[in-house]
Amino acid sequence: QSSVTLFGVVDAAVTHTRGSGDGSARKTQLTSSGNMFSRIGFRGTEDLGGGLSAGFWLEAGLQNDSGSGFPSNTNNQASGNGTPGVLSFNRRSTLSLAGPFGEVRLGRDYVPAFWNTAIFDPFGTGGGIGANQIYFSGLGGLPAPTGTRASNSIGYFLPGNLGGFYGQAMYAMGENDSTSVLPGSLRPNRRDGSHVGFRFGYLQGGFNIALATGKTRYASGDLRVTNLGASYTFGPSLMSLKLTGELYTESKGSTDGKGALIGFQLPVGPGEIKGSYARHRLEPAGAALKPTTSKFAIGYVHNLSKRTALYATFARIGNRNGAAQALAGAITMPNRASSGTEFGMRHIF
Amino acid sequence: QSSVTLFGVVDAAVTHTRGSGDGSARKTQLTSSGNMFSRIGFRGTEDLGGGLSAGFWLEAGLQNDSGSGFPSNTNNQASGNGTPGVLSFNRRSTLSLAGPFGEVRLGRDYVPAFWNTAIFDPFGTGGGIGANQIYFSGLGGLPAPTGTRASNSIGYFLPGNLGGFYGQAMYAMGENDSTSVLPGSLRPNRRDGSHVGFRFGYLQGGFNIALATGKTRYASGDLRVTNLGASYTFGPSLMSLKLTGELYTESKGSTDGKGALIGFQLPVGPGEIKGSYARHRLEPAGAALKPTTSKFAIGYVHNLSKRTALYATFARIGNRNGAAQALAGAITMPNRASSGTEFGMRHIF
Amino acid sequence: QSSVTLFGVVDAAVTHTRGSGDGSARKTQLTSSGNMFSRIGFRGTEDLGGGLSAGFWLEAGLQNDSGSGFPSNTNNQASGNGTPGVLSFNRRSTLSLAGPFGEVRLGRDYVPAFWNTAIFDPFGTGGGIGANQIYFSGLGGLPAPTGTRASNSIGYFLPGNLGGFYGQAMYAMGENDSTSVLPGSLRPNRRDGSHVGFRFGYLQGGFNIALATGKTRYASGDLRVTNLGASYTFGPSLMSLKLTGELYTESKGSTDGKGALIGFQLPVGPGEIKGSYARHRLEPAGAALKPTTSKFAIGYVHNLSKRTALYATFARIGNRNGAAQALAGAITMPNRASSGTEFGMRHIF
Repeated sequence: QSSVTLFGVVDAAVTHTRGSGDGSARKTQLTSSGNMFSRIGFRGTEDLGGGLSAGFWLEAGLQNDSGSGFPSNTNNQASGNGTPGVLSFNRRSTLSLAGPFGEVRLGRDYVPAFWNTAIFDPFGTGGGIGANQIYFSGLGGLPAPTGTRASNSIGYFLPGNLGGFYGQAMYAMGENDSTSVLPGSLRPNRRDGSHVGFRFGYLQGGFNIALATGKTRYASGDLRVTNLGASYTFGPSLMSLKLTGELYTESKGSTDGKGALIGFQLPVGPGEIKGSYARHRLEPAGAALKPTTSKFAIGYVHNLSKRTALYATFARIGNRNGAAQALAGAITMPNRASSGTEFGMRHIF
Repeated sequence: QSSVTLFGVVDAAVTHTRGSGDGSARKTQLTSSGNMFSRIGFRGTEDLGGGLSAGFWLEAGLQNDSGSGFPSNTNNQASGNGTPGVLSFNRRSTLSLAGPFGEVRLGRDYVPAFWNTAIFDPFGTGGGIGANQIYFSGLGGLPAPTGTRASNSIGYFLPGNLGGFYGQAMYAMGENDSTSVLPGSLRPNRRDGSHVGFRFGYLQGGFNIALATGKTRYASGDLRVTNLGASYTFGPSLMSLKLTGELYTESKGSTDGKGALIGFQLPVGPGEIKGSYARHRLEPAGAALKPTTSKFAIGYVHNLSKRTALYATFARIGNRNGAAQALAGAITMPNRASSGTEFGMRHIF
Repeated sequence: QSSVTLFGVVDAAVTHTRGSGDGSARKTQLTSSGNMFSRIGFRGTEDLGGGLSAGFWLEAGLQNDSGSGFPSNTNNQASGNGTPGVLSFNRRSTLSLAGPFGEVRLGRDYVPAFWNTAIFDPFGTGGGIGANQIYFSGLGGLPAPTGTRASNSIGYFLPGNLGGFYGQAMYAMGENDSTSVLPGSLRPNRRDGSHVGFRFGYLQGGFNIALATGKTRYASGDLRVTNLGASYTFGPSLMSLKLTGELYTESKGSTDGKGALIGFQLPVGPGEIKGSYARHRLEPAGAALKPTTSKFAIGYVHNLSKRTALYATFARIGNRNGAAQALAGAITMPNRASSGTEFGMRHIF
């Protein structure tokens, strides 16, 4: 009766990051997830006949440097954040019905706009120092529970036979009741935490392009994200060089953000060299200065097998107009740089 | 050496519930467990020869709408409640030795009196809006950590070859030390959280009847539950109609409760129609009014396979004598009704 | 693609412990882990060719009497303790690269000095009443997050082909940043939680001896542990009697501790009799009295199979010079004894 696949990733690295300026701090750590996010999961599908299938997917993030996990968020609002460090199926927890019509997916899943950021960044959106951090983490200034995933969601995915076109839509509920108000006010927040998102793309040969957008409602200011990503992989004659790019805008209440990233991936023997350059500008309403951050990352991944790799990454963040973004673990001063190195190993099971 | 079965259920539904009256509230949610409680577990048995076997069972409840779990309770008292949302093997965590003598089971397990409520309700005791809620949840007024399960238990189950008779007994410990007193008092509470329960039944052909009782000791007033359940399944000529019924009483300190439920299950093609009607009356000592609640539920389950089903449920709660019970998520006013609908999918793995 | 072994232990016992003197307390409990620590884990290895292999190991401790788990510690300092009762891979969470050079291991793992305490105690270091408790638990007075394991560690193990010699080294990071100070002071604590440890041994025939040491840095006083363990197993003519012994010292700030343990294991038919005697003396700087504790334990393990056993243990603690150590669950008065019995079952899967 059981038909479950147990799967996961364990990824660990020694990471050193530092800032500059008076009051800056550096740190050396054993980190998780430098190349791919560490995780453990259970998934399965059942063929129902007639082209229909049912499937489930339960996937928990791991902090394998300490054996801890990550909490989920129950209502797409700050009030629904779980206890730090606990294990949960925070990465994905879904039930699916798939068929010729596509796939309907219920539960906690990635918001559509997340995928462009993950797919068109050569470093993915791992916890490593190379990842672009643009999206609601280091460089982007607009964190929200729905930055990467949403709970209580109903998702729909187009079927796979549309001549290269693909797409998805998501509606997620904040699940406040009809009389709910913002804590400490009379302002209704019944719709807080509800998310609507779309993604539409085209993939043909080595070419991939996708546009995505999403909006999460908050009484304190809606969060909006739109991004466009593209990549092209040159054939064997150009050593399968892959170029990627992404443009995006984000907005939360009276603050906007804009950013762009370009990158490449180049196979070299059993390994791969990859690099990226990203810029992000925060635009607070009425502010004279627009804090601007740039990030450069270059890395090498040496595959010991299809499942196991060693890797090294160097990254550097530059700040202007008062920005003080630093690589994780470091503290840097406004307008000063932060840099770091990472040496790690990644194993897929 | 390993011989583990990984098993579980992922069940998700879109649920809308509402109350009535000034100040009532409605809510639309993605819920888990509408048809069966979502869970993931690990279990195994080992044949020890001579008719003996050892077994273990670790089963965690899931809130798969958000990827969260449920905490356990460590001492059958309010002080032992875990952190909301964390994963634990809260549903069952047992070690067994079985043989011709029956089964001895150690750990966290269902209290005997729970089973009548689960088995003789056509909607089981899932988290769905159809479940009777009689037992320590919505309609019953006497919640306690041992309402469904008890930790630190020693259980005994009769062997399976007694000509249709079956039975079980449980003793569970609250594990207070010998000098323990109620917080803020000098009243000894050494025995708080200790539970004794029994269940005895007879199953023959389509007929099933069982009587169960349980008592949990608390210095603030013992909790007592007794229930009697029965069901009869008519043969193929009557389309396997199954009728069920349950009577029970509960008591905690100076408050008593009484209730009854009748239900049916009727196979229809690849699916099943089921319905139930339940009443519950709370009897606070010395109170002029006895808050009374009734519940009606009807549902259809459409099986896509043995493991996967779609389902729809409608339920309505009525209140009298000051009662204000509502379906989960809704708020209703005293003596007003609450109703709801649920459309979902359940997958067993 | 998946190659995971799911493994674990479920162990449960009925344990009664008591103290003596006015104000002492006794307790009867269902406990976990009397013979072996209860756990559930996932592990796997991948052959990378050329003598190389990759491996991962994720292992969570279980409190199967209630279905709860154990939190991990993220930074080897008190501030990194997780929420009590939550599940985590607290026992081990590692990624390995192994080859002719030995093994490099990253993550959360046992500190080297733990192993002598575990291996040379006939009762292991389970949660049972027989375990020596010397090491940072009942009898030793110097608890620390790195008493048994350390997070954020880089470990190295010698290869297995050194003619009986074996050894390991560990460096673990507290991961404070470079400007970190002790809370409420200006005292730098950048190095707090960093651990260095070594173990070196020789195993030949029935003879095993190992020396280990470890130091964890804390601004409030470093924690140092050194221990020496040995065992000899007599051949079949002496019924495979195994004698074990351990000497150790520990120090934290201005308090020292010293201890010793001797034990035996004797196969008897399908079972084993085992016993131990341990002494521990706490030496607070400048104190007139040195609290001294002794412990005697004797047990019988009856194997129903290689994986399943029943067991019984009796243990008694004696206190002098103001010591008031008690078996878990009991409270005893200074200079008074504590004793207990345990009857349980252990199942490995």
